[in-house]
Amino acid sequence: MANETDISALLALTAMDMEAVNEMILARAASQVKLVPDISRYLIEAGGKRLRPMLTLGAAQLFGASGHHQINYAAAVEFMHTATLLHDDVVDESEKRRGKPAARMVWGNQASVLVGDYLLGQAFMMMVEAGDLEALGVLSQAAATIAEGEVFQLVRAGDLETSEADYFAIIEAKTAALFAAATEVGALAAAAPPSGRAAVRTYGRELGIAFQLTDDLLDFGGIGGSSGSLGKNVGDDLRDGKLTLPMVYALGHTATDNREFLVKSLGNREIGEAELARVIEILRSSDGLAYTLAKARKHSDQARAALEDIADSPSRSALNEVVDYNLRRAS
Amino acid sequence: MANETDISALLALTAMDMEAVNEMILARAASQVKLVPDISRYLIEAGGKRLRPMLTLGAAQLFGASGHHQINYAAAVEFMHTATLLHDDVVDESEKRRGKPAARMVWGNQASVLVGDYLLGQAFMMMVEAGDLEALGVLSQAAATIAEGEVFQLVRAGDLETSEADYFAIIEAKTAALFAAATEVGALAAAAPPSGRAAVRTYGRELGIAFQLTDDLLDFGGIGGSSGSLGKNVGDDLRDGKLTLPMVYALGHTATDNREFLVKSLGNREIGEAELARVIEILRSSDGLAYTLAKARKHSDQARAALEDIADSPSRSALNEVVDYNLRRAS
Repeated sequence: MANETDISALLALTAMDMEAVNEMILARAASQVKLVPDISRYLIEAGGKRLRPMLTLGAAQLFGASGHHQINYAAAVEFMHTATLLHDDVVDESEKRRGKPAARMVWGNQASVLVGDYLLGQAFMMMVEAGDLEALGVLSQAAATIAEGEVFQLVRAGDLETSEADYFAIIEAKTAALFAAATEVGALAAAAPPSGRAAVRTYGRELGIAFQLTDDLLDFGGIGGSSGSLGKNVGDDLRDGKLTLPMVYALGHTATDNREFLVKSLGNREIGEAELARVIEILRSSDGLAYTLAKARKHSDQARAALEDIADSPSRSALNEVVDYNLRRAS
Repeated sequence: MANETDISALLALTAMDMEAVNEMILARAASQVKLVPDISRYLIEAGGKRLRPMLTLGAAQLFGASGHHQINYAAAVEFMHTATLLHDDVVDESEKRRGKPAARMVWGNQASVLVGDYLLGQAFMMMVEAGDLEALGVLSQAAATIAEGEVFQLVRAGDLETSEADYFAIIEAKTAALFAAATEVGALAAAAPPSGRAAVRTYGRELGIAFQLTDDLLDFGGIGGSSGSLGKNVGDDLRDGKLTLPMVYALGHTATDNREFLVKSLGNREIGEAELARVIEILRSSDGLAYTLAKARKHSDQARAALEDIADSPSRSALNEVVDYNLRRAS
């Protein structure tokens, strides 16, 4: 895993704005019902790079934003992300999140569902206060798209007929939609021209796709594959029955006995270390891992290309650095 | 239980607009992911009076709305309500909803959470399309307030220290906030004057409080109490450990042995019919049921009073009829 300094340029550029965002986040996670801030802060304060709000601020700076709208938008984007994490952990029955017990393990599924709803409502309130209907449209569309993608993923869980196209439809919706919305509302806060708005939206979408591809690769230990000992969370997608690209590709490009082993392992919550290592070895030897990395590289290139027509600047370099940072995670 | 004709005036007045609302609801519950419309329609089409969207339309008519905004608002209000039902049933582990298996019993908790999120996103999209930031503010505030109220209810479940003030704080948030928002956005769609907007908001809030008081009374069989056989869903709140007003009042106004019996019964999911009948008898003899009905009457009066300064019209009569209809449910 990479450390924070890998996105040091974006961190430095957005440091001052992020202070305002963090202040707003804490203020808006407040409630007379103590459980609400308890859960919100547990997730929000517990590490996490806050990459999405930084992307909003970075995109806003790219077009010389001067007002305050990008602060509201960035805080709203982080709340939407946090709400999604709370609900995802309930849906996936996850026990851990960022190395700590998932909120649902501490406070239960019920509170996780409801506090997620609260944060979503607060996100929209912050958007309304900024008063731009276009930005509101972008984020409400993203909220619906993310949920739709998660439902599609749920429907496809354990389904061996899941195609590469299905996989990309799922990650475009569940992950890339929020990255795209995050950068697009940044551009809106800066009153960017339509071409600039479209460019950073494409950048956000492509980065988001590359980000999820990398995450899905890391779920099998990264491109290094089975070499060395496996991290704690390796194999989570496999146990959840999620068919991510390494698996989708391998199922179509390996011998029958290997295929049968993959099928048997998919959704097996009790899978042992040796069996998991064999799954990873099959994903490696069938080029499932390499194919996924190649796709991550392709979408990373497309993210960079989206910014090519925008004049070079520290903000543009910082956004491109995020693309590189993400790819480095995989290798 | 009352039949539909009890709100016949509102039904008749809003029939044409409701056709447009229903069309929009069906169109917006559509998705390439078939599970989304399957679940949405299961809830939306399965009976239910669609009282909240009708209140939006009624409030809009009260001020002579001519445009189309109230259609979007009414559909958005119904989606918000449906999303809340989906999440509530997960939180309460409910097995039934309106006499049918709850969606979570058919499709699971996971899909219920995610489709609820989808409907919430769609609700905001419909609001954005209407393009009124004030209305968006009203509904996003309501979304956050509803969730906050549900969290408070969850925190207080089984807590014998729950006060009457706590109870009213919970129902104002979880129920009355959406009624108030539903009528307020109706007024906004009609460009009502500030005084009119405030009046229908108060009407909505007070009606919502009376509505929840009545529901909580009906959960113990209504004011008639233990007489006759108990309906299927009687005692659900008791089994869930929810301290509603009949219980809160009775706990403070009954003899020690009765109090101990109530405490023992609260949260008992396996409670038998004889024990449930004794609980209801205690609620009746301690005036817990009568006190709750008196409160429902008081808030009904306040709902009617809120409309007093508005000129009489078929719309005003229709809105007042809803207040009467609700009270009749209890008796």
